[in-house]
Amino acid sequence: MRTALRLAEGGPATGVNPRVGCVILDAEGRTIAEGFHRGAGTAHAEVDALSSLPEGGARGATAVVTLEPCNHWGLTGPCSEALIAAGVARVVYAVADPGRHSSGGAERLREAGVEVIGGVLADEAERFLGDWLTAARLGRPHITVKWASTLDGRTAAADGTSRWITGAAARQRVHEQREASDAIVVGTGTVLADDPSLTARGDAGELLPKQPTPVVVGTRAVPKDAAVFRHPHPVIFEGTHDLHEVVADLHQRGFRRVYVEGGPTLASAFVAAGLVDEFAIYLAPALLGGPKLALGDIGADTIGDQRKLRILDVERLGVDLYLRAVPVPTSHQEA
Amino acid sequence: MRTALRLAEGGPATGVNPRVGCVILDAEGRTIAEGFHRGAGTAHAEVDALSSLPEGGARGATAVVTLEPCNHWGLTGPCSEALIAAGVARVVYAVADPGRHSSGGAERLREAGVEVIGGVLADEAERFLGDWLTAARLGRPHITVKWASTLDGRTAAADGTSRWITGAAARQRVHEQREASDAIVVGTGTVLADDPSLTARGDAGELLPKQPTPVVVGTRAVPKDAAVFRHPHPVIFEGTHDLHEVVADLHQRGFRRVYVEGGPTLASAFVAAGLVDEFAIYLAPALLGGPKLALGDIGADTIGDQRKLRILDVERLGVDLYLRAVPVPTSHQEA
Ligand SMILES: NC(=O)c1ccc[n+]([C@@H]2O[C@H](COP(=O)([O-])OP(=O)(O)OC[C@H]3O[C@@H](n4cnc5c(N)ncnc54)[C@H](OP(=O)(O)O)[C@@H]3O)[C@@H](O)[C@H]2O)c1
Ligand SMILES: NC(=O)c1ccc[n+]([C@@H]2O[C@H](COP(=O)([O-])OP(=O)(O)OC[C@H]3O[C@@H](n4cnc5c(N)ncnc54)[C@H](OP(=O)(O)O)[C@@H]3O)[C@@H](O)[C@H]2O)c1
Repeated sequence: MRTALRLAEGGPATGVNPRVGCVILDAEGRTIAEGFHRGAGTAHAEVDALSSLPEGGARGATAVVTLEPCNHWGLTGPCSEALIAAGVARVVYAVADPGRHSSGGAERLREAGVEVIGGVLADEAERFLGDWLTAARLGRPHITVKWASTLDGRTAAADGTSRWITGAAARQRVHEQREASDAIVVGTGTVLADDPSLTARGDAGELLPKQPTPVVVGTRAVPKDAAVFRHPHPVIFEGTHDLHEVVADLHQRGFRRVYVEGGPTLASAFVAAGLVDEFAIYLAPALLGGPKLALGDIGADTIGDQRKLRILDVERLGVDLYLRAVPVPTSHQEA
Repeated sequence: MRTALRLAEGGPATGVNPRVGCVILDAEGRTIAEGFHRGAGTAHAEVDALSSLPEGGARGATAVVTLEPCNHWGLTGPCSEALIAAGVARVVYAVADPGRHSSGGAERLREAGVEVIGGVLADEAERFLGDWLTAARLGRPHITVKWASTLDGRTAAADGTSRWITGAAARQRVHEQREASDAIVVGTGTVLADDPSLTARGDAGELLPKQPTPVVVGTRAVPKDAAVFRHPHPVIFEGTHDLHEVVADLHQRGFRRVYVEGGPTLASAFVAAGLVDEFAIYLAPALLGGPKLALGDIGADTIGDQRKLRILDVERLGVDLYLRAVPVPTSHQEA
């Protein structure tokens, strides 16, 4: 299974499909084929592995695969059928397929007389699949909300000036997080105030190989010469305040990892709607006071309404702090 | 010197006087006497050590002392004169006396023909003297400003409810910091809103052995039945908004370590006045939004006015974070 996980790493880290690896072993436990999934429209890991074997070469073999074989006719045929047709005797997998359309592979295999063992190294595989698994289970993208503030929760001085609150190391981390996302979402307020390019850039300002699609949420028009229009990907406008509608549309478009970069109004709306899976909070060692806050109103009128988080990591990035946190579900929270 | 530092630990950690230790060595380097300072009005460490020797017993000896011997007639005579009278040949000290009235001991000793070596283990001794040294150098108490907020900088929900934002471990740390302070300072707003007792308490709510003196700053009257009136120490009222005046008065009264516990108006005023030596920031893993902020206006209208800090420690206390930070002096800042 560890080999299968290592193979899975060969696939693309973003996009609609999970990264899956597959190893085929003969009756003596020797590896006879390896495969992994290279992204939407290409062969699944199991089919990729089988394809390297001669006709009948997998008869009686064991397929070790990081995700339960799918049972779904999508752009490719179901892997469960391919494994049955190849005469595989045993399938070992790590994580059950969370998809509404694609699950049921283990059951189909068992019906066909294949021995199926699930849950092997499941923790490790779940960690590896991470955001993709959240997205698949929730039926919407995994949503990270990011902000950068001073220790007293301010994102800018009273006059709106804010460059630079955090240092180079923190800003670089933000660009890496952008690159690891399918879409980067901001409100019209941020576009009108800051005219951001919403690209993922390296140390020297160069574009990184992967670029998230820019998404602007809000009803106001954006000037024709806004920097977002020069983004490598066409910008998506979501002309609504209904964030459930927004995330459904983004999911529909194939985005699985969404990075919400503000501003405060939009970030607060995501928190209030309970539509946050992870917080990326950058704290600069400074105080500003005044009216420009990282979060505005999140609908917490009394202390019982507070949104509790769990801090997963605290990291020093240069002089700044980076906190990675997840919401703690309470009865007060939606979603 | 390390022995002298260890001896110094025997003295009281709060109050007007520094903790000082002294070791007297004979010509062969053998320890013949030890002493330390037990607090205001008692013998200084050097005199304490000399007192254990017979008449003439220190002739030709070396005195190792953590702080430069004082040169000042206070409640006790100057140590420089006592060492000269005892015939000590050499004095080794760690940190120079920062006092306006008490410094000059090294010079006086040299005039009298005593060999003087300063700066031995100075870093360690400075760290040990800590807040007392700040107070002596600034001519005012060492001031710590503390607050507890959510990650978005809120101290309470919109309706004012706030119990409990931070957990037991963080609250206990606050009580320890109160106990280590000479005075605990709040604004009238906090007294009127929360009716705090301003005592240092243990796990079970019991009073800790040392209690800081409660100080209330502001012009409004406090109800006669307020909890502060039941404090073991009589409460001090500072009926002014001039914080320079307040800290001068507290210094005058012999307070060297002052702990400012809010509320937001008073904390912001201390920051704006540049009267903060240390920040004790407790961050609870929660979000609240809304109008109740840890800091209000600190006079930073544009980003160049931000108060930069250096984070010395980041500690997890239960689920909370504790940040210890100090101001980074800039040309914009007073004090
Ligand atoms: N430090 C940071 O991390 C950071 C990051 C980004 C931005 N900022 C700062 O934030 C400031 C802009 O603040 P902002 O709050 O105006 O920006 P914003 O949150 O980007 O935009 C607010 C707009 O979003 C739209 N919107 C979409 N969904 C909404 C919903 N559910 N509820 C309410 N509004 C919704 C509304 O636009 P319509 O009126 O058009 O419908 C609203 O006016 C800038 O000064 C920028 O520098 C800071
Ligand atoms: N989370 C925490 O760490 C924490 C700690 C303490 C309090 N709190 C909360 O803070 C709230 C109270 O807030 P607050 O801001 O009203 O309390 P505050 O800062 O304790 O009191 C404000 C008052 O301080 C006086 N004052 C003294 N020097 C001043 C100066 N230089 N500038 C301005 N005012 C000065 C003024 O009183 P006069 O008008 O009488 O002159 C002013 O109205 C309470 O709800 C409490 O729960 C939170």
